[in-house]
Amino acid sequence: MANSIERPLDLLNNSKGKEVLVHLKGDKQFVGTLLAFDIHINLVMDNVKQMEDGEIKKSLGLTFLRGDTIIYISPASTALK
Amino acid sequence: MANSIERPLDLLNNSKGKEVLVHLKGDKQFVGTLLAFDIHINLVMDNVKQMEDGEIKKSLGLTFLRGDTIIYISPASTALK
Amino acid sequence: MANSIERPLDLLNNSKGKEVLVHLKGDKQFVGTLLAFDIHINLVMDNVKQMEDGEIKKSLGLTFLRGDTIIYISPASTALK
Amino acid sequence: MANSIERPLDLLNNSKGKEVLVHLKGDKQFVGTLLAFDIHINLVMDNVKQMEDGEIKKSLGLTFLRGDTIIYISPASTALK
Amino acid sequence: MANSIERPLDLLNNSKGKEVLVHLKGDKQFVGTLLAFDIHINLVMDNVKQMEDGEIKKSLGLTFLRGDTIIYISPASTALK
Amino acid sequence: MANSIERPLDLLNNSKGKEVLVHLKGDKQFVGTLLAFDIHINLVMDNVKQMEDGEIKKSLGLTFLRGDTIIYISPASTALK
Amino acid sequence: MANSIERPLDLLNNSKGKEVLVHLKGDKQFVGTLLAFDIHINLVMDNVKQMEDGEIKKSLGLTFLRGDTIIYISPASTALK
Repeated sequence: MANSIERPLDLLNNSKGKEVLVHLKGDKQFVGTLLAFDIHINLVMDNVKQMEDGEIKKSLGLTFLRGDTIIYISPASTALK
Repeated sequence: MANSIERPLDLLNNSKGKEVLVHLKGDKQFVGTLLAFDIHINLVMDNVKQMEDGEIKKSLGLTFLRGDTIIYISPASTALK
Repeated sequence: MANSIERPLDLLNNSKGKEVLVHLKGDKQFVGTLLAFDIHINLVMDNVKQMEDGEIKKSLGLTFLRGDTIIYISPASTALK
Repeated sequence: MANSIERPLDLLNNSKGKEVLVHLKGDKQFVGTLLAFDIHINLVMDNVKQMEDGEIKKSLGLTFLRGDTIIYISPASTALK
Repeated sequence: MANSIERPLDLLNNSKGKEVLVHLKGDKQFVGTLLAFDIHINLVMDNVKQMEDGEIKKSLGLTFLRGDTIIYISPASTALK
Repeated sequence: MANSIERPLDLLNNSKGKEVLVHLKGDKQFVGTLLAFDIHINLVMDNVKQMEDGEIKKSLGLTFLRGDTIIYISPASTALK
Repeated sequence: MANSIERPLDLLNNSKGKEVLVHLKGDKQFVGTLLAFDIHINLVMDNVKQMEDGEIKKSLGLTFLRGDTIIYISPASTALK
């Protein structure tokens, strides 16, 4: 998957339909299936769960996440294994 | 609903007239019926209630919410069930 | 009033000449009559009163409020009843 | 004065040459005569005094205030009476 | 000097070659001779001294100050007298 | 490597395929192989490890890092030796 | 050096190849040789050392510094003498 990445958004494109970890400012963490993104890094994810210390804190289902609160997005985090 | 989402704003469009949970920076939460949004994610919601620990803290009725304070918007949160 | 809202700014337009509650970052609250707004959500209000715990803290009269500090604007808040 | 306001900047235009109260983020307060402003709400004021609890804390004289730190500007505040 | 000011940047232009007080977010204060500025309010000052409680805390000499951290610039502050 | 740098992004271009240290606001540190970047300094890195006091805190693998949270990027930090 | 400065970026241009002190928000300080900068005040510096209370805290070598975290840049600070 790393081979096909020439621009940062390529990783998000490759991750559509897959589970990703999203870490926000203020240390909020969400895990869910990436459905859509735009150039502001606004995301829509499905089956979203807010995580805290490795536990599910809240189930949000389908969710719109505003890009400007995001620190990182990882489709390969150990948090997903 | 997830099938028809190609861009993040599609989720907001699909949620018009429906109840959504809006979570703001500073951990304010609002529940209400989504009436309108724009590309800045400014929202107008009706029958808005500010929530705290699952309880209604304040009734706001018709309300304009500024987009840049929003973290996420979920039409499917367990908080709505 | 909710029926005529297609874009978020429609609510502000409908609220001109009426009393609104404006809630700012840092939890400042102002009540006053909305006279004017622009696309940055800069507002001018008349007969402005800064509220704290439901009490008038300060009378400001005619006031220009900068849009980027606003969280929400409600013409229908229970705080106005 | 309120009658002639159609856009927010009209209030600033009407206030040129008059004393205004400017309240900044971090709760700094300045009182002075408004000389000039631009669309970023950058201001130049004359005879500026920084206020604290209704007392003059510091005299600044002629001062340039950067717009992005401003919360509100009131030409009619009770603080000016 | 106040008479010739029609736009906020006129004050900065009039202050070139003169000593000014610059107050930053986080309450840092710098005194020095204004050499140059741009529309972002980026400044270059010479003989810059960082002040704290009216005392020189550090001598910086020639310094570039980024505009977005500035709260106010006063060529007439009592701090300069 | 320093000789070929005329613009800041040249350093990021020269660092593609190499290990870099990325330091974020809030003092988060990440080490990984730089794969891609854009003009917003959004990054994609591979084999990412979040570091704390010189220890690996979390393995993230392939990760998208949003540019606006970055303070510095160093391909030559002693933290990498 | 002060004589040739008409715009703020002239100081950065004059400082290429020379040692500068860079002070960031959050009071981080870096000393190093300025190699490159752009209009966002993104910098590349060589032989970078992070300073704390006048002591070297960390050696970073060649480093990209993001412009929006910078408060000031001084090629003439007493901290460099």
